Amino acid sequence: MERQSASRAVYVGVIGGRRCSDEIAELAFRVGRGIAEQGWILVCGGMGGVMEQACRGARSQNGVTLGILPGDSRDRGNPYLSCSVVTGLGEARNVLVVKSSQALIAIDGSYGTLSEIALANAAGIPVVGLRSWQLDAQENRGQGLFSRVVDDPNEAIQTVKSLIFESF
Amino acid sequence: MERQSASRAVYVGVIGGRRCSDEIAELAFRVGRGIAEQGWILVCGGMGGVMEQACRGARSQNGVTLGILPGDSRDRGNPYLSCSVVTGLGEARNVLVVKSSQALIAIDGSYGTLSEIALANAAGIPVVGLRSWQLDAQENRGQGLFSRVVDDPNEAIQTVKSLIFESF
Amino acid sequence: MERQSASRAVYVGVIGGRRCSDEIAELAFRVGRGIAEQGWILVCGGMGGVMEQACRGARSQNGVTLGILPGDSRDRGNPYLSCSVVTGLGEARNVLVVKSSQALIAIDGSYGTLSEIALANAAGIPVVGLRSWQLDAQENRGQGLFSRVVDDPNEAIQTVKSLIFESF
Amino acid sequence: MERQSASRAVYVGVIGGRRCSDEIAELAFRVGRGIAEQGWILVCGGMGGVMEQACRGARSQNGVTLGILPGDSRDRGNPYLSCSVVTGLGEARNVLVVKSSQALIAIDGSYGTLSEIALANAAGIPVVGLRSWQLDAQENRGQGLFSRVVDDPNEAIQTVKSLIFESF
Repeated sequence: MERQSASRAVYVGVIGGRRCSDEIAELAFRVGRGIAEQGWILVCGGMGGVMEQACRGARSQNGVTLGILPGDSRDRGNPYLSCSVVTGLGEARNVLVVKSSQALIAIDGSYGTLSEIALANAAGIPVVGLRSWQLDAQENRGQGLFSRVVDDPNEAIQTVKSLIFESF
Repeated sequence: MERQSASRAVYVGVIGGRRCSDEIAELAFRVGRGIAEQGWILVCGGMGGVMEQACRGARSQNGVTLGILPGDSRDRGNPYLSCSVVTGLGEARNVLVVKSSQALIAIDGSYGTLSEIALANAAGIPVVGLRSWQLDAQENRGQGLFSRVVDDPNEAIQTVKSLIFESF
Repeated sequence: MERQSASRAVYVGVIGGRRCSDEIAELAFRVGRGIAEQGWILVCGGMGGVMEQACRGARSQNGVTLGILPGDSRDRGNPYLSCSVVTGLGEARNVLVVKSSQALIAIDGSYGTLSEIALANAAGIPVVGLRSWQLDAQENRGQGLFSRVVDDPNEAIQTVKSLIFESF
Repeated sequence: MERQSASRAVYVGVIGGRRCSDEIAELAFRVGRGIAEQGWILVCGGMGGVMEQACRGARSQNGVTLGILPGDSRDRGNPYLSCSVVTGLGEARNVLVVKSSQALIAIDGSYGTLSEIALANAAGIPVVGLRSWQLDAQENRGQGLFSRVVDDPNEAIQTVKSLIFESF
């Protein structure tokens, strides 16, 4: 039974900036809450902004949040992490956030987020975009950024659901 | 409240080989069980042998186990992980196991375990040794491997307890 | 004197895909040759395609090429590396290619290259684009990918020159 | 021809502490000089102490030195590096020093050095010890630290030579 509950766990990443507007914070909170409502583990880089708000949303539903921290101390992580990993790898920890997720939801974000979106595409991990980077696939040899661009947190959750079950 | 429960969590690492004898397996199981009984999160490299048996022990008490995996897939992790991180870093993930722990218990183990003991010493993280590496500190300019060498799982847990509280 | 020659060395990265068309290969060769003609050290991910052709160009002028390899063996590196580092980090080695460069030239490329462009922007390291990713900065809150987009290898070298000297 | 010179290059690592006595500094200098006299590339962690003195020795013979730096800046590297990689990985860069070497010479050193010796053993890379860690293999289930313990720099070089040619 332990065996099953652990191996059946679904990991969904939330990526976005360490700072964000109130509007983006609200979206991140709702995405995090939605992830917890599905019973998924929320993976993130463990810091503030979008990461913190998503974790806060997940914890509001007693969800599990896993933070993969860039620095050498757990103290810098946001206060809504159930569990955290101290990597000391700096930005190289972005790769771990991506590889540890079965699907990712990108919300807003700057260059660090873009690097994660790119790494996910390179690894074949689906990414759902919500108010995030925009790029014209036609001008980039058919290389787009997102499996799907969505308009709201609920649609993001439903899309991840279909992407994960499709991939089984 | 969420804030407190998360930030108060205590992380204790268990390090040892991917393969072990039945006798060592039993020790690892009891160490893992003891960690869970204290309410600590068990950190490990997520693979078989000592890591798996310690996780099995922790899960037998509904403890939380965090596996920091070397490879590119979660499937290789042992079946007793509450939560896992896919690093793709190979042996470089040993550093993350060490940095993510407030104290470590080394059980048996080969060179990978020795690298973790050394890294913990370099970082000032206490390590308790149980049937693990032996080194004469006097012949090594006073540089020993362990904060304390113990004889059984119960003593390992009690020693970690005193080491963590002393360091506050 | 040793001191000066070493500390004065200029490191310029070339990023792009492991496979490329003949046309792109020719551009990469000329970029590599130009880097060597300036006396700069060429940094890259050490593999085939754009990386290999750039290294071939640099070596044709007796330039120095440094490959930061993703795998666990030096044998997989392209044959035009003066010097290589075996990381075993997989795609996380992209971060090292970026951090080890004072400026980067992106040629063509897929998602791995995009992750490096993004990481460079996050770290404040200038990137020159040559037939690479296209993104409308206005649609992305002013966040563009390149310090400058250029049309040919010669312009790429001249632009890097001005970017590096400006940053001193 | 380029192809051959590059692929035939031999990489030998020197590991030891960031600080050392004058006596150890002299040994490190002579080891570095010997490596350069053999035409091998000297790999190290790029910092001071044993690393710096070995690089100084190699450069005195116009040897090539490769520093794999832990921090985010090239400026912290010692002044005798022909070539350096900026990793930002902290102590996790120890793994890269080991993997990038066909054999290692450990001189003196503290826990960081011990972690590298252990990682080399785990990876099957031979290590020669010179005034370094001491451990009784018999008390450690036959697990020793060194392929061979030597008494002086010349013997270290000759031993590495035989170890590398044996392994072909």
